[in-house]
Amino acid sequence: MAYPTSDLLAARHASARATMAASGLDAFIVVHPPNVRYLTGFTGSTAIVVLTPAEAVFITDGRYTTTVETVVAPNCPGLRLVKVDPNYDATLARIVSEGGARVVGFEAAHMSVKRFDWLQAALGPAGRPALKAVDRVVEAIRVVKDAVEQATFRQAGVLLDAVAADVLASVRAGMRECDLAAEIDYKLRRGGFEKPSFDTIVASGPHAAMPHARPDDRVLAAGDLVVLDFGGVHDGYCVDLTRTVSVGEPGPEARRLYAAVAEAQLAGVGAVRPGAPVTNVDEAARGVLERYGLGPAFSHATGHGLGLEIHEEPRVGPRRADIPGVPPAGTDLILEPGVVITVEPGAYVPGLGGVRIEDDVLVTRDGVEWLTHVARELRVV
Amino acid sequence: MAYPTSDLLAARHASARATMAASGLDAFIVVHPPNVRYLTGFTGSTAIVVLTPAEAVFITDGRYTTTVETVVAPNCPGLRLVKVDPNYDATLARIVSEGGARVVGFEAAHMSVKRFDWLQAALGPAGRPALKAVDRVVEAIRVVKDAVEQATFRQAGVLLDAVAADVLASVRAGMRECDLAAEIDYKLRRGGFEKPSFDTIVASGPHAAMPHARPDDRVLAAGDLVVLDFGGVHDGYCVDLTRTVSVGEPGPEARRLYAAVAEAQLAGVGAVRPGAPVTNVDEAARGVLERYGLGPAFSHATGHGLGLEIHEEPRVGPRRADIPGVPPAGTDLILEPGVVITVEPGAYVPGLGGVRIEDDVLVTRDGVEWLTHVARELRVV
Repeated sequence: MAYPTSDLLAARHASARATMAASGLDAFIVVHPPNVRYLTGFTGSTAIVVLTPAEAVFITDGRYTTTVETVVAPNCPGLRLVKVDPNYDATLARIVSEGGARVVGFEAAHMSVKRFDWLQAALGPAGRPALKAVDRVVEAIRVVKDAVEQATFRQAGVLLDAVAADVLASVRAGMRECDLAAEIDYKLRRGGFEKPSFDTIVASGPHAAMPHARPDDRVLAAGDLVVLDFGGVHDGYCVDLTRTVSVGEPGPEARRLYAAVAEAQLAGVGAVRPGAPVTNVDEAARGVLERYGLGPAFSHATGHGLGLEIHEEPRVGPRRADIPGVPPAGTDLILEPGVVITVEPGAYVPGLGGVRIEDDVLVTRDGVEWLTHVARELRVV
Repeated sequence: MAYPTSDLLAARHASARATMAASGLDAFIVVHPPNVRYLTGFTGSTAIVVLTPAEAVFITDGRYTTTVETVVAPNCPGLRLVKVDPNYDATLARIVSEGGARVVGFEAAHMSVKRFDWLQAALGPAGRPALKAVDRVVEAIRVVKDAVEQATFRQAGVLLDAVAADVLASVRAGMRECDLAAEIDYKLRRGGFEKPSFDTIVASGPHAAMPHARPDDRVLAAGDLVVLDFGGVHDGYCVDLTRTVSVGEPGPEARRLYAAVAEAQLAGVGAVRPGAPVTNVDEAARGVLERYGLGPAFSHATGHGLGLEIHEEPRVGPRRADIPGVPPAGTDLILEPGVVITVEPGAYVPGLGGVRIEDDVLVTRDGVEWLTHVARELRVV
């Protein structure tokens, strides 16, 4: 496990503190685990960080205090460990009250109404310190990957290529979807990943017409298109790949479907460049499928950001200017070097099946770098 | 995949509607995925249910509409599918506005402040319909497992016993923690589980002193205690088991630590019976460790409820009456037949290592039924 260095964490704290200052916050409560990890290197499931101009107060419970003292604190500038007593909410209220902050920001997208109501009441009727809902403070920083994160992604892509080549060579008629999924997950772990980055999808025949089918005991049979969508976590970072194989020679309709999606994917990746709106990527991929008459068969976004979460900003989807009142949440992003996204158009046709092809790409100064490379041609098994 | 039957879902809807009526709700927004699954059988990641006296309005997006139409709707009484347009929040606001409800409950523990604020604004300044924060409506129903759920747990326990026996027979000095974890996860999948129910823990030597260490490339060596904590998901339900093995003959201190934890676990399970407060289970286990002078070494709760989530109500922890303002969230539960919990005391001693022993038990009409049975004696490898 590589932990972020002190310098890296200091830079992330500085970025968050700049946003805090611009938003008039004296302190900022971070509850979302990937954001806690991004700011501290902590990999556990439960902790709260209260970032102030001088400190990163780290609240966690007895399960994690030894880890924090020995592994996290030495690398994290300004970390002050506070052990939960008697519970998280009460400890947080105490820290916020004692800190002397007047305006305390919190992550509105990640704090539940229940916790907010409790905290508000615990801080007293005077409403001091005042809680202020803020959004995307850490997420906005996370969109652009720094050099260390980019290196992690390149390593993860190489690992995933090797696993994928192995997986594709192992697909056979007669296998059950669930067994193939188990093989994939095992290969991911043996291939150097900490764990799968999401529930592996093996969707065969009619299941392939459902973009998010779960593997079950269906047996792969001649005539099936089989969508394999899997990925792993490497040093905390998620990569994600989809290939579609044909069991036996595909018919002309299946070949046409595959060709359309492959062309759409190349068009999507071709639209990835610094300075371009991320919506261009979706438009390029979707436009190809629409020309094939497959617009309605493409029922999801073209991709998503990757990072400490398998789905993070930006959403690589259609332009959303026409949705009143919906915050863009990264859909209006202008691509810049360091952004990592998936490009994964698909087409799903009941009665025929489905095709999805997905790779991960990094926006560079010059254009785009493919992070995954395993053969994209239709594989017939 | 076994989907709940119509009768079962109708009974769950009736329970939820009884709570709605008692809370004065005309409609109830369910956003927490396990609660959505419990009420409908839907296994996907994203959907919102608006339960009304007559309907279960089911909001989901294009990824899932085919699955809902073909698999979920036929079994779910009163389901009306509404496809997301243009996004979840806006669709939810429309459904709530059109439904004519005056008081609409929502899950305060699972709705973010961001979504609440948006929804409140979208429903208009008149505040009609009024949103009302409610808590534990579905969770309270889920605590007591019905006959079908109990049968699922018994099957899952048998599956986990077989996997655990296989795992324990495979532990060897010289293995890396991460490789052993990969083997465990593969055995879980090959053993009939959909996936691991949480990140498998393999904590050896000094890592064993950290209750939630992550497996890394440390190699198992003579003198190590090794904590193996793993479980699987079977038909959506989570089971969870921990065994501790010794690499080479353990010293007297390690043997004493093991004996204390084993005695504590038996005492904990011995306190499980209908009519008893769940805190009795923690008191019984904790009392044993305190008598051994290991009270401070036992830094977590004795257990937790199991179900569609790996951690659900009740918390099997110390009595919390002394914590002002903290809602009990199931810690004050009186055990009744159908409740499923883990009993997993541990002791963690820097310099020596750690021991945890965990089984899953079902409260019966007469007392307690062990769901997991694999040998609990200290295994020396």
